[in-house]
Amino acid sequence: MSPLDRLAKRPGSLMIIGGAEDRTDDKEVLRTFIELAGGRDAPLAIVTAASEIPDKVWGMYREALSDLGVTALSHVRIESRQAAENEALAQQLQAAGGIFLTGGDQQRLLERIGGTRAGAAIRAAYSGHGACVAGTSAGASGLCTHMITEGQADGAPEIDGARLADGLGLVSRVVVDQHFSQRHRINRLLGIVAQHPFLLGAGIDEDTALVVHGDRSIEVLGNGSVTIVDCRCVQSNIAALSAGEVPRLLNVCLHLLPSGSRFTADMQGPLADFIHFLLDSTVEP
Amino acid sequence: MSPLDRLAKRPGSLMIIGGAEDRTDDKEVLRTFIELAGGRDAPLAIVTAASEIPDKVWGMYREALSDLGVTALSHVRIESRQAAENEALAQQLQAAGGIFLTGGDQQRLLERIGGTRAGAAIRAAYSGHGACVAGTSAGASGLCTHMITEGQADGAPEIDGARLADGLGLVSRVVVDQHFSQRHRINRLLGIVAQHPFLLGAGIDEDTALVVHGDRSIEVLGNGSVTIVDCRCVQSNIAALSAGEVPRLLNVCLHLLPSGSRFTADMQGPLADFIHFLLDSTVEP
Repeated sequence: MSPLDRLAKRPGSLMIIGGAEDRTDDKEVLRTFIELAGGRDAPLAIVTAASEIPDKVWGMYREALSDLGVTALSHVRIESRQAAENEALAQQLQAAGGIFLTGGDQQRLLERIGGTRAGAAIRAAYSGHGACVAGTSAGASGLCTHMITEGQADGAPEIDGARLADGLGLVSRVVVDQHFSQRHRINRLLGIVAQHPFLLGAGIDEDTALVVHGDRSIEVLGNGSVTIVDCRCVQSNIAALSAGEVPRLLNVCLHLLPSGSRFTADMQGPLADFIHFLLDSTVEP
Repeated sequence: MSPLDRLAKRPGSLMIIGGAEDRTDDKEVLRTFIELAGGRDAPLAIVTAASEIPDKVWGMYREALSDLGVTALSHVRIESRQAAENEALAQQLQAAGGIFLTGGDQQRLLERIGGTRAGAAIRAAYSGHGACVAGTSAGASGLCTHMITEGQADGAPEIDGARLADGLGLVSRVVVDQHFSQRHRINRLLGIVAQHPFLLGAGIDEDTALVVHGDRSIEVLGNGSVTIVDCRCVQSNIAALSAGEVPRLLNVCLHLLPSGSRFTADMQGPLADFIHFLLDSTVEP
């Protein structure tokens, strides 16, 4: 049985990584990616479309992953929408055991692959072919239906201080921020979620992954934590405010999930909806 | 009727200031202090006990407040517990229309005046004599029954990452952190409140004051916001963890109160307890 046959028999997994994952030391996040992709001999695709320095980024991951013994690693370099429509490239992505979306700029990532064959292939690899799709930093932001594109992290959660754009659509009703504690992005995420309370916010620390396993469990691993921001019950004065004003927000609900946290689909309580959104998002073709 | 007679006829007010209040420009926070203290001719006492450079700090406030036209400003310099037991000094504090506790180090402040006649005089000025008691930065931290003394702000909210000590006792069930957004102290405050959920956390931004008015209303004024952290309904694994570990916290309740927010004693809803704690703390002699 080839690695691909094995993969096709199980549901895919997702790794939402907060950037700056360890690439030289223990490499827990990258080791997990290899494992979830089907092991060292599984075909792995490193997608550098978010980056302006794709060769440098590819070199970094080639070295880090090769050190971990992978045998079928390839660089998927996508620098235009035309390239993203290439059929052979789409087939390569769809056949991968693991797809890793590197950092860079999430707006560039979406400008290049949003709504293209490459984007559809990544979704299909996750939803239908049992692949592990991982995104780090900009790659993590781009995974969901909505993503944060702009916005200062350091200020107050001002109205329109950050903006939403469309992402790759692997998870709906969740919006991701990355480098979360390190870049002090709680106010940026709070501002976005307060204005868009249909979404739950997930702030991922560096060298930390929120993992959606194929067996329908959820795990936080790596060195930091995941912070969930839920504004569905918030009482605010947002409707009366203009851009740049700071809203009054009562009843923001916050969850902190440190590395080692695990949850299953049947979990009840305050995290139930978040888990449900991660596990049961309908990924359209 | 002298300014003091007027003051004695109304309940005191409290200003909890997040540090770095404007002293050169619009000076909204300091202007409010003068107003609540009874106006330009009210006796104002600047207490520099928290500081290692009391003369420099006094000079700064003398200049800023003199520019605003005050006529009866005095420097209350307390550099030892012995000085804090001085009867004349206690009377001077108790007779003040406004007492301003400057920044420095809250532990030094409490080492010098906690449990002394000076400390009791500050409480009496607030609870019985209608004075405005203001504290900024370390002075703000020292106002409540409990205060944060140590703890890195930047890391995860680790168990025992910050510590509680005793404060001056003007407000109970609230613990204050200052320079809040500017120094990224949400995790420090979250860690403290998660471990001590009997307390509500109030994180005050720089150049921002949480004001408890004598008419039993509450106001946020200045340039930033006040963030309230409420862990009373949190589900956590804290009991099973050791120092340095990061707890799992579900259901943290957060409120953001920007400058301009006003609340009255009869307000219902998620802020009701916070308002009640601020207004109805029993200040012991």
